[in-house]
Amino acid sequence: MNEYLKHDEWCIIEEGFKPENHQSSESIFSLGNGNMGHRAMFEEQYSGETLQGTYIAGVYYPDKTRVGWWKNGYPEYFAKVLNAPNWIGIDVKINGEMLDLAKCKVSEFVRTLNMKEGVLERSFVATLSNGNQVKIEAKRFLSIVTTEVGVIRYSVTALNFDGKISFNSYIDADVKNEDSNYDEKFWDILNTKSMTGEAYITARTKKLDFHVCMNMRYQVLKNGQDVAATADIIEKEKYVANSIEFNVEQGDELSFYKYVSVLSSLNHSKTEISGNAAKVSAAAFEKGYGALLEEHVAAWAEKWSISDIVIEGDVAAQQAIRFNIFQLNQTYTGEDERLNIGPKGFTGEKYGGSTYWDTEAYCVPFYLSTSRPEVTRNLLIYRHKQLQKAIENAEKLGFKNGAALYPMVTMNGEECHNEWEITFEEIHRNGAIAFAIYNYIRHTDDKKYLAEYGLDVLVGISRFWSQRVTYSTAKNKYVMLGVTGPNEYENNVNNNWYTNTIACWCMSYTQEAFKYVKESNPVRYEEIIENLNFDFETETARWSDIVENMHFPIEKETGVFLQQDGFMDKEQLMASDLDPQFRPINQFWSWDRILRSCFIKQADVLQGVYLFEENYDLETIKKNYNFYEPRTLHESSLSPCIHSILASKIGDIDSAYEMYLRTSRLDLDDYNREAHEGLHITSMAGTWMSIVEGFGGMRVVNGQLSLKPLIPGQWKSYSFKVLFRGNLLNIFVSADEVGVINEEGEDVSIFIKDDEYKIEKSSSLVIENE
Amino acid sequence: MNEYLKHDEWCIIEEGFKPENHQSSESIFSLGNGNMGHRAMFEEQYSGETLQGTYIAGVYYPDKTRVGWWKNGYPEYFAKVLNAPNWIGIDVKINGEMLDLAKCKVSEFVRTLNMKEGVLERSFVATLSNGNQVKIEAKRFLSIVTTEVGVIRYSVTALNFDGKISFNSYIDADVKNEDSNYDEKFWDILNTKSMTGEAYITARTKKLDFHVCMNMRYQVLKNGQDVAATADIIEKEKYVANSIEFNVEQGDELSFYKYVSVLSSLNHSKTEISGNAAKVSAAAFEKGYGALLEEHVAAWAEKWSISDIVIEGDVAAQQAIRFNIFQLNQTYTGEDERLNIGPKGFTGEKYGGSTYWDTEAYCVPFYLSTSRPEVTRNLLIYRHKQLQKAIENAEKLGFKNGAALYPMVTMNGEECHNEWEITFEEIHRNGAIAFAIYNYIRHTDDKKYLAEYGLDVLVGISRFWSQRVTYSTAKNKYVMLGVTGPNEYENNVNNNWYTNTIACWCMSYTQEAFKYVKESNPVRYEEIIENLNFDFETETARWSDIVENMHFPIEKETGVFLQQDGFMDKEQLMASDLDPQFRPINQFWSWDRILRSCFIKQADVLQGVYLFEENYDLETIKKNYNFYEPRTLHESSLSPCIHSILASKIGDIDSAYEMYLRTSRLDLDDYNREAHEGLHITSMAGTWMSIVEGFGGMRVVNGQLSLKPLIPGQWKSYSFKVLFRGNLLNIFVSADEVGVINEEGEDVSIFIKDDEYKIEKSSSLVIENE
Repeated sequence: MNEYLKHDEWCIIEEGFKPENHQSSESIFSLGNGNMGHRAMFEEQYSGETLQGTYIAGVYYPDKTRVGWWKNGYPEYFAKVLNAPNWIGIDVKINGEMLDLAKCKVSEFVRTLNMKEGVLERSFVATLSNGNQVKIEAKRFLSIVTTEVGVIRYSVTALNFDGKISFNSYIDADVKNEDSNYDEKFWDILNTKSMTGEAYITARTKKLDFHVCMNMRYQVLKNGQDVAATADIIEKEKYVANSIEFNVEQGDELSFYKYVSVLSSLNHSKTEISGNAAKVSAAAFEKGYGALLEEHVAAWAEKWSISDIVIEGDVAAQQAIRFNIFQLNQTYTGEDERLNIGPKGFTGEKYGGSTYWDTEAYCVPFYLSTSRPEVTRNLLIYRHKQLQKAIENAEKLGFKNGAALYPMVTMNGEECHNEWEITFEEIHRNGAIAFAIYNYIRHTDDKKYLAEYGLDVLVGISRFWSQRVTYSTAKNKYVMLGVTGPNEYENNVNNNWYTNTIACWCMSYTQEAFKYVKESNPVRYEEIIENLNFDFETETARWSDIVENMHFPIEKETGVFLQQDGFMDKEQLMASDLDPQFRPINQFWSWDRILRSCFIKQADVLQGVYLFEENYDLETIKKNYNFYEPRTLHESSLSPCIHSILASKIGDIDSAYEMYLRTSRLDLDDYNREAHEGLHITSMAGTWMSIVEGFGGMRVVNGQLSLKPLIPGQWKSYSFKVLFRGNLLNIFVSADEVGVINEEGEDVSIFIKDDEYKIEKSSSLVIENE
Repeated sequence: MNEYLKHDEWCIIEEGFKPENHQSSESIFSLGNGNMGHRAMFEEQYSGETLQGTYIAGVYYPDKTRVGWWKNGYPEYFAKVLNAPNWIGIDVKINGEMLDLAKCKVSEFVRTLNMKEGVLERSFVATLSNGNQVKIEAKRFLSIVTTEVGVIRYSVTALNFDGKISFNSYIDADVKNEDSNYDEKFWDILNTKSMTGEAYITARTKKLDFHVCMNMRYQVLKNGQDVAATADIIEKEKYVANSIEFNVEQGDELSFYKYVSVLSSLNHSKTEISGNAAKVSAAAFEKGYGALLEEHVAAWAEKWSISDIVIEGDVAAQQAIRFNIFQLNQTYTGEDERLNIGPKGFTGEKYGGSTYWDTEAYCVPFYLSTSRPEVTRNLLIYRHKQLQKAIENAEKLGFKNGAALYPMVTMNGEECHNEWEITFEEIHRNGAIAFAIYNYIRHTDDKKYLAEYGLDVLVGISRFWSQRVTYSTAKNKYVMLGVTGPNEYENNVNNNWYTNTIACWCMSYTQEAFKYVKESNPVRYEEIIENLNFDFETETARWSDIVENMHFPIEKETGVFLQQDGFMDKEQLMASDLDPQFRPINQFWSWDRILRSCFIKQADVLQGVYLFEENYDLETIKKNYNFYEPRTLHESSLSPCIHSILASKIGDIDSAYEMYLRTSRLDLDDYNREAHEGLHITSMAGTWMSIVEGFGGMRVVNGQLSLKPLIPGQWKSYSFKVLFRGNLLNIFVSADEVGVINEEGEDVSIFIKDDEYKIEKSSSLVIENE
């Protein structure tokens, strides 16, 4: 834990400069706009500890893998989010002395992330060793309207001197990834040019040939008035800059406005990228700081209007949930189906910035309720476009006939991970990808998606499961041998209950999907059958046989679903038996000890109970929750939210709230002392789920929205918005009342605590909350 | 397969020079003397493909490990056998042209490894591009009498010219390991000196500070007469040489005798090593080639007199078994308890040259029967000396109270391996180390070893097992979760039958050992109890409880011992179902596919049946053999010998012979196209076992030797020697007769086919073989 941030409803605020918190703050105050992002590094030079990080969506690098003992089938490379050239830099000299917060006296330091407006601000007074005192006010944003543009306003006021102040504004392509496997640099420079008032660098990645061009323009105002000066033009091999000096008198304020365009070859032809970058930065320069900021703030207001959650009576909780929502909206905007959501978003390098099953299992529910359907649809299409790679991936593992295994970690559809127990065996990920299709259609009613894109993916996945099971003559049942479930503290187990469950569900749902497509679009149906070379009778008969005859491990006396075969042979200890000082156990225990313990890293059986809740009565859910919760260590950020939702489900609001707390301020209060590496972006969606699906009890049942609201005793009220099939509903919950405003769309019927209510368009409903 | 070697009873012979076989030959023709060894590189320059390899026993390097995903408990380094400076080099120039077999015409090439004498010979005629023709005869050996000395005789005869021949004799320390993880070089040079007639290099390893000094002297004869010439002295940073030139007339023979001492800081103080090396090479020089060779050959004759196996009627089999015995005797002589037997001995770099359980499970039986007891005893003491490290290793994994886990791979007692499924889970290795103590005492009757060294080790190992098991309340049995058995095509399984079996055996035997020590040496007994802080009642009560209540998986219908829990859930395929072109499967299948298949890499349940044969009736052995043999792929060199012995045991001599063939010429005929990397030294002991324990049926039963001889139909007869409790017995088996000569020792009683025979000293027995 490290609680150094001030509580505030709309802002993240750091008061006073402590270098030891700086790298965490660099993560926490990160900016992004879906198209690019960066950590909250300082514009001016900083010689203290910093993790410079500038990222461009979709621009990655296949770093040569490092492995101890090669296994057949391992991928040759691990795709990494690429640290791109740094364009925010503005060196500041005061009478020849470089401003550097590691080398001067700093007072009145405040760093603010204004989440309402999407703006990073910083102000402080610096006293340099030459005695000169300056006040700095810096403000920057990445436009979510013109997403190739970033803007900085950097103001220096001479507090106690007359003299010279200079700005050296640069773009620096001499960057590297901290997690490079062999300490290699990943960029080649194609083109650099610096001229008066403008400079740019075009660089290409050493592999895959992504091109990126960054072009900067700037303007300087003195006390609000345009001021001209001759710039020194600086051009090095991997660096361009303009350096410009001004005379000031005490009290003068110089404001440096930097407009930078950041373009990548994902969106521009390689021959035109440099020219386009010049045009984009010129247009931004023309439009000017004020107008750019205004449209940016307006666009954020629009986002908040459908995704905000308001909590009354608990500022820390209010701040936290907004932080989670803000980061999710910064990371992925759903405009480009080639993009996805890395576990650290644009806030750090770790985990390679690649796509995991986190997207489908955690992020999809968030975007479904808080964005237009296209946003989630693009996440699904991302996987659809990678189907062929998933088929090839399965072929490498010996599967045939179009069976598809989606990778555990990927950028472009190819597997990047290389631990056999994960890469080859953590196959439940395939189920999450199928479930996301179901979830999307359940929420949006966009059934046409099946014929357009969904069915191909479902068939590939079901074919995989059908080949992956083994018929055990000993058990007279189908079994699934050698898997790793969501609980990665078990490897190579047999009959992981969750995996078997989702596998059977996939094979059933694919048959339903076939049925729907056949009825609704027989032409397309025939086309799919032919394209997939699908032997309907034989293949679906096998699927049905597997579904009917799958082995599910169950504890005989209690009927608890067993995580895997043999789970009850373990010593049945509880998390509370562990000495907290030796947690997380993976930092203290050897792997074999973890594996043979009964301790659970993250929801596993309970992940299945959560996903398929409608199949289980409350008693069953309680029984399983009460069995697994005490054995679960929540040593993954993805874990507490699922437990929180189930605790709400069984009416245990105190446990639900306790679990909610673990997820909501995970990064803000740096629970695990790892915020400096980047934020847990994907698990932030789980925090949102804990409120909406947990406390709010929101479900989609038979095509209708259903709520079963509870409220933690610590809160006065909370409200959240849900976009559901054309309606925008604003749901308010207090201890006394449940209110629903039908803000957009036609009349709607919803269930609250199992009673159906009709809410006409643009009207609201208030009922008592018993 | 690559059958290019000529069959011969005592020699390995390669006729004609084929560069594509050279690296395999470099392995196969390797020389060693227990103290050092090298591959059969050429003395003269060779610009073709070669793997230069010079090794000094006990001199290793902790190379920085390379791992993809770090797990807590992994070792930081992997100890590697170190490629040491090359001292065999003699460049030869003929009228200024360098002799290089890659660049001249070669005829009459014969390379011979004379196993009877321990000498490597080579002769050929080379026609250089200048038209000069020379005949070369090279001969070298590593003295097994003065084990710090290597000697070369290199003769050149001018066949068709008068002119100049020069020799440049050198020591080159600019060497590297081909398997260096980060391409680093491992040696620093301390001292180089070249003077007329003598040169040396002292080098130290960059880590661990091993010092090595090599000192060379030489002499040249012309047509058998000493001939003098002035040498050019060459001294570079990592290289010393003497270059010397002679005038010759057609028909002249120049013979270069090179005497090199190779000393390491294992046996010499670092301040004296250079001086001592000079003395040792001077002494060798004084003694001279003829005398050194004579004593060397005599010592080999002595070795053969107790370890030879004679096969009549099958030259290929005769050659193969001698090759296996020869390589084992070259690799380990048992004089130094700090040394052990790397899987590749002195013949290659792979597997790091470290100690594996191969030593105890395979090599110990060989050395027990073919060497003085001290040889095996030193192998046991090696582990005894590493007990503290084994305790520390277990502590890293969470064990306490003196529990010891010996490493999977080691040089100095510390674990080197870093795959969790092996490092942490392939714990059956601990059992082999205990079994070797039992086996040594069973064979030698040296029960005093228990009090001296054995009991400490047994207690450490039993304590490990006692803590490693879990009591399953579900089964009401002790279980052993998360292990890898000898069959490494399964990982992280529960209740590996072999591991459970050997664990229980350890805990029982340790109690027997306690009992024996208590009765025979009560003072030492009390001392051990105190030193180990051994709570006799509590600890042994738990051991007994575990032994009595251990869970052993068993196939219900047939009673076959199951390799692990759930084995019968697998698809029961047979090795014969596999397409041979996709073998070995680990080169074609992804790891998960291997793991969930029923295919077995090497004897696992059958390893246990072999070790504890006396506990099972013939029916049980047959049943298990017939179940497992068809599922076993023998994709480890350690596998076929165990199956061969059991096939003999159940009377299936044809299968036994087939399996024997797989092991005996594995390297000579390069079955797996990997001989170029080095030889399978430790599995060679298994070949010996296949004859002696397999065909010969030799066992020790109640302190007496027992034989149940069979003979393959392809052989006329075979005979082997066994050192057993002071007797040297020569056992002869033909289809008609079994003969035993009591060559050394007192009268002895042995069992042949369950009948007891007394053989008086220096006499023999012949009985009919029905």
